[in-house]
Amino acid sequence: MHAPQSELVQAAADVLARVRERRPRVHCITNTVAQAFTANVLLALGAVPSMTISPDEIAAFVAQANALLVNLGTLDGERREACDIAIEEAGAAEVPWVLDPVFVDRSQPRAAFAKTLVARGPRALRLNGAEFATLSGADAGGDTVARFARDHGCVVALTGATDVVDDGQRRAVIANGDALMANVTAMGCAASALVAACLAVETDALRATAAGLIMLGVAGEIAASRARGPGSVAVEIIDALHRLDREMLVERARVT
Amino acid sequence: MHAPQSELVQAAADVLARVRERRPRVHCITNTVAQAFTANVLLALGAVPSMTISPDEIAAFVAQANALLVNLGTLDGERREACDIAIEEAGAAEVPWVLDPVFVDRSQPRAAFAKTLVARGPRALRLNGAEFATLSGADAGGDTVARFARDHGCVVALTGATDVVDDGQRRAVIANGDALMANVTAMGCAASALVAACLAVETDALRATAAGLIMLGVAGEIAASRARGPGSVAVEIIDALHRLDREMLVERARVT
Amino acid sequence: MHAPQSELVQAAADVLARVRERRPRVHCITNTVAQAFTANVLLALGAVPSMTISPDEIAAFVAQANALLVNLGTLDGERREACDIAIEEAGAAEVPWVLDPVFVDRSQPRAAFAKTLVARGPRALRLNGAEFATLSGADAGGDTVARFARDHGCVVALTGATDVVDDGQRRAVIANGDALMANVTAMGCAASALVAACLAVETDALRATAAGLIMLGVAGEIAASRARGPGSVAVEIIDALHRLDREMLVERARVT
Repeated sequence: MHAPQSELVQAAADVLARVRERRPRVHCITNTVAQAFTANVLLALGAVPSMTISPDEIAAFVAQANALLVNLGTLDGERREACDIAIEEAGAAEVPWVLDPVFVDRSQPRAAFAKTLVARGPRALRLNGAEFATLSGADAGGDTVARFARDHGCVVALTGATDVVDDGQRRAVIANGDALMANVTAMGCAASALVAACLAVETDALRATAAGLIMLGVAGEIAASRARGPGSVAVEIIDALHRLDREMLVERARVT
Repeated sequence: MHAPQSELVQAAADVLARVRERRPRVHCITNTVAQAFTANVLLALGAVPSMTISPDEIAAFVAQANALLVNLGTLDGERREACDIAIEEAGAAEVPWVLDPVFVDRSQPRAAFAKTLVARGPRALRLNGAEFATLSGADAGGDTVARFARDHGCVVALTGATDVVDDGQRRAVIANGDALMANVTAMGCAASALVAACLAVETDALRATAAGLIMLGVAGEIAASRARGPGSVAVEIIDALHRLDREMLVERARVT
Repeated sequence: MHAPQSELVQAAADVLARVRERRPRVHCITNTVAQAFTANVLLALGAVPSMTISPDEIAAFVAQANALLVNLGTLDGERREACDIAIEEAGAAEVPWVLDPVFVDRSQPRAAFAKTLVARGPRALRLNGAEFATLSGADAGGDTVARFARDHGCVVALTGATDVVDDGQRRAVIANGDALMANVTAMGCAASALVAACLAVETDALRATAAGLIMLGVAGEIAASRARGPGSVAVEIIDALHRLDREMLVERARVT
């Protein structure tokens, strides 16, 4: 069933306020293409990013973090090892984590690795339709997303022209965002990072995940209204996240 | 002899239309400094970038790509291995590739490695004067560029205040661009990536290479007319590439 | 004692003129999050960045450089090895170097490594209060900064809302900058890179270090007056560094 729209929007506004107040630390294993944009998006929201992947340091960073992002872009041997250590530590320290299985549709070894990570208990999984089809073996239509969420005990956030967030019991559909966002590299990676920041301050993973996507979508719309293309939209979206407040979020959120 | 100017400009406009329509996949081995800007430049034009260098994944990415960029910046052991595997796969799958031998004038081992790559059949080689002198053992004046292109069976694109593109038989000189572009990091790397995107949709390598440089030069001029410095020119050039159309290209191209 | 304010400001203006004229090469070992912004900040000022960390190439880059930056962000095995080789070569070739011990307060092995580097003779150490406390074992109040500088024979630049630069004998306090700068990733890393560029053209390390921080602070204020948030401030600061001149610097510097 669909989660009540107004409740999710109010929850997103509350989550925003808590991120601003608590400034959660978000440790990010993310690809080198996405690192700077991801860090700037997190800082703009009020979170504190760190990005080390060194095997002898990452456990200390995760233990001191409030959330963890595991993004599989530009996956190499050191990143794989970092994922293992970080997820182990996140389990021990009860740090919620998000999995972003970038491009698993293009690389068989990466898809196999991603499947092992799904089994290790991410709080949320953010991906696009092609990536979902690779991991689940089924297209994203009908009941497959809810079933996958239920089977794996995590929230699935399937992003695209509209975003679907499903925890197997409840579903939110978010219609915010702008087409220009798809022309900016690492926008999906940034979405996953924002979801991690929200999970740091909200234990209801469906609410937290929806909150992150609503924030980025609303900021993207504000940014697009001021931008002339994907270069300026990337700059404006960071400004918009920084200026985002409860009123803008509630007024502009389009959740069903 | 010089290639007919109007023909090259029309070809560039056709190449632009084909990139927009076909959305070629461009796999990029490129340095970590240049990755985000390169990805954004490719997305702005309409191409789809990927950037993995992991030895166990890169062959799959190259096999599914329509062009390959091999950029030697921040070269390390893993990048060297990635180059080997990617070029091997590009040969097998007939994927055209571009070599960008960044800073070979500063590093003897890199220059030696670059020479072995030149011998493996890049469709185009984009570099500056100091890099050309290191690889060829001769200054870029007179007949040396044409001779190098002829001897190695590839297009040489020597970029600077004006760009020279030569395949050993034909030459194009491109006078587009703006001085501010030289103050933005990775601008040359981005030029090489655009050349790769053009090679994905145009088999005449001279036309494709000239097309990529014309597009970037025209976008750079439009960007500079709106910018206050290298920070804003980097943003504006992405917007300008996104908005570039046949009319702007034909009107502004300065090719002799 | 405090260094005379007007002398430091005039020195900063002279340093700026020399960087513009000589275009020093600054080799940067820096984290992958900061690389692009750091390169753009250096280019905007007039310096020429390079960023290779490969063990078989880095000595050649350092030997040909006029200054070296050693930033410990995203520290991994290869970066550690690069630090060793680069500092060794900097000693042999008399290339001044700056240490930026990012996040030593979060990682014990990194703090231990940073302490060994402090003992190898950086000309300047730029860090924040938490990082200073970790390295020195004492809070940054009272005489501790001057004592640390004296004991280790290097300039300490402690940055924050106001910046303190101390060489153990002289102290400068710089009140330039804007709160928005703290919301941009790699701003501190960029400050360290600018200090390196200034050390390339000025042998008085206190003057050079103060010059780098004054330049960034003044550019940050100009940028903030034009920006709507951290996205646009990052773009504007690059433009402002590019346009910075003696008059702006002298008029706006707030040094005591």
